Amino acid sequence: MENAAARMEKDIEMLSKISAPGPGVTRLPFTPEAKKTVEALKWLMAEAGMEVRVDASEAVIGRLEGKRRETILIGSHYDSVKNGGAFDGMSGVICGIETVRQLREAEIQPLYSVEVIAMNDEEGARFSSGFLSSKALLGEITVDELKRLKDAAGISIYEAMEAYGADPDRIGEAVRELEGLKAFLEVHIEQGPILEANQKSIGIVDTIVGMKRRIITVKGRADHVGTTPMDMRIDAIEIAAKAVARLGDLAREYEHTVATCGYFAPLPNAVNTVASEVKFSVDIRSTKLENVDAVYHRFLAILDEEAARFKGSYSILETLTVDPVDMDEKLQGLIEDSCIQNGFAYQHINSGAGHDSLPIGEKMPTAMIFVPSKKGRSHCPEEDTDCKYLAQAVAILKDVVLNLK
Amino acid sequence: MENAAARMEKDIEMLSKISAPGPGVTRLPFTPEAKKTVEALKWLMAEAGMEVRVDASEAVIGRLEGKRRETILIGSHYDSVKNGGAFDGMSGVICGIETVRQLREAEIQPLYSVEVIAMNDEEGARFSSGFLSSKALLGEITVDELKRLKDAAGISIYEAMEAYGADPDRIGEAVRELEGLKAFLEVHIEQGPILEANQKSIGIVDTIVGMKRRIITVKGRADHVGTTPMDMRIDAIEIAAKAVARLGDLAREYEHTVATCGYFAPLPNAVNTVASEVKFSVDIRSTKLENVDAVYHRFLAILDEEAARFKGSYSILETLTVDPVDMDEKLQGLIEDSCIQNGFAYQHINSGAGHDSLPIGEKMPTAMIFVPSKKGRSHCPEEDTDCKYLAQAVAILKDVVLNLK
Repeated sequence: MENAAARMEKDIEMLSKISAPGPGVTRLPFTPEAKKTVEALKWLMAEAGMEVRVDASEAVIGRLEGKRRETILIGSHYDSVKNGGAFDGMSGVICGIETVRQLREAEIQPLYSVEVIAMNDEEGARFSSGFLSSKALLGEITVDELKRLKDAAGISIYEAMEAYGADPDRIGEAVRELEGLKAFLEVHIEQGPILEANQKSIGIVDTIVGMKRRIITVKGRADHVGTTPMDMRIDAIEIAAKAVARLGDLAREYEHTVATCGYFAPLPNAVNTVASEVKFSVDIRSTKLENVDAVYHRFLAILDEEAARFKGSYSILETLTVDPVDMDEKLQGLIEDSCIQNGFAYQHINSGAGHDSLPIGEKMPTAMIFVPSKKGRSHCPEEDTDCKYLAQAVAILKDVVLNLK
Repeated sequence: MENAAARMEKDIEMLSKISAPGPGVTRLPFTPEAKKTVEALKWLMAEAGMEVRVDASEAVIGRLEGKRRETILIGSHYDSVKNGGAFDGMSGVICGIETVRQLREAEIQPLYSVEVIAMNDEEGARFSSGFLSSKALLGEITVDELKRLKDAAGISIYEAMEAYGADPDRIGEAVRELEGLKAFLEVHIEQGPILEANQKSIGIVDTIVGMKRRIITVKGRADHVGTTPMDMRIDAIEIAAKAVARLGDLAREYEHTVATCGYFAPLPNAVNTVASEVKFSVDIRSTKLENVDAVYHRFLAILDEEAARFKGSYSILETLTVDPVDMDEKLQGLIEDSCIQNGFAYQHINSGAGHDSLPIGEKMPTAMIFVPSKKGRSHCPEEDTDCKYLAQAVAILKDVVLNLK
């Protein structure tokens, strides 16, 4: 297992060097960095003894033939956020490759074929969308959508793919027949503080949270902060703050539920002017759809009341709505058995972040294995995970591959 | 009176053309626009029959000799904020000039001499300080301070004065002997909605509010909004919003008191990251110092409690502390007598904004006359006041000059 940890550490270290300039890892989809990463992954998969291809979404797929054609997919994504870390996504890809390496070294031909998949554009960091390869695999992305989704410079995914040398018109060729796929297994860093706080090395994901994300614009009126009496002002900051102040405590009333305002932008944002407008974000997540809805509707009721009290108004922009997805119980059971057999310190956990397992988990049996993030940090250069936990995850993957009937 | 209104409208219109490019009026101190304004005011004052000089702070002063050397000062400021209006400050200067015009036309030599003073850099829009001419007149500004106070480009008042052609080393020459000054009278637009709402044409200022202005920095910790449980986060927006949400209602408990957060700037200000920091402003004003202090200390107690609850921290930057200043009762009485005699619709009012009358009012008998601001708007191109109200203010100024014993 120490050997596996060292090998994976070396792989992840090597891949982290393929990045746009700047702190940490920046590997946005359809960039020169992405192309170099695809080449490196092809090489790594081939070295591990897999037959390698790149699909129409630019996912890299390595196949180890089993006794049957039916396939277990193992993977995660190779793109990163801007100035992210070395482990997000790539850990799961490397765990897949290491699993095949170990099967080959032990000269085991598994019952089911194994494909390691390194997906592209999970993060949505360039085109504000994400899940490109996983949605392409499920047939959930069209050529029209590739043309519609654009980056900050106005370049569509379609145009970016062409400039990169991929053929966007063939995106439909990435679709897989789901009957041939037995399971999707994804190892991922936790990106939160729970496993570390509980001194666990493995998290068995029960549910990937559902979420509502909205941008709310409160309208008030600009006035002089000194000369306008309190009863003659419509202060957009006052209205917004009175609602935002209660958001967290609403979430605290429900289990496995979080709610956050991370973005708060007033106009004119000047010390001596009453704010005429505030745009702020509301992000509510829970393993239970009814909890998301309850917090959201109670929050809107508070905002209604405060806007009415001060004669202000507000509008809502819907930016993301996702239902919670439960992981497959049979796969979770196999993971738990492996943890017990191997003596790994594990716990059940929910995923507060979206992953490729979110869209895929809606369509086929899916399981996620979390490993601890140092200090819970992620999406930053300081992101770190001890590779000994990745080695444990690989041991589990191998058990699941060999024990899945 | 219609004649006076028309003349003043023409003067204010003419002077509003002297501006840096852009919407509204921009006349920052020690700029080419300021120099042209000084020349125009010198010409207007000389035309009105005054002996004109420019003091060491670049205030323009026109003198009408009375039967006695003792002097009544009438004036306001000629500088503006960036993209401000035509009436802020300049209305009071033109009312002073019109008062002298009318005295000359009626061939009245008043008992006391009259000086119309057009002050410089009241707003502090360039050097974040303000009250330059009024403080220079009171001997409250030193050459060292001229060197210390800088604009956004790092140019000190001292350097700006030299580049403009003024001599900063002679700032001490602007100091006046207060025994020779009987009163300071300032007409100013209200910059708020009260007179218009109450259908009054004249406001007799009782008190210029005292204020505390602070920039507060709340420190939290950046975390993923989805993966960090509610009880493991230090959300700087949550802490700050919980305090800011209660600021306005604290002020509403006290008479003639306002409190505002107009500036709220989180970091990283991203939808999917718990805020690590918020800088926000608190501006508290009241005619009663004890009200300012009460709101401020109760606000800090709330912030203390919220920071402690979430294990966050905060620090305070003191940016402005001013005590309230009461206007002179004898001068107020003369203004009120004039309103009654002339049948002007008047009311007593407080000033929520600072004016040259604030530092001057601390040292000598001072009175302010407010005229209505259309829709309460000020410090913007839409700033407007009907000049018929300015003509009423001039009638009052004339009465005060002639009746002050």
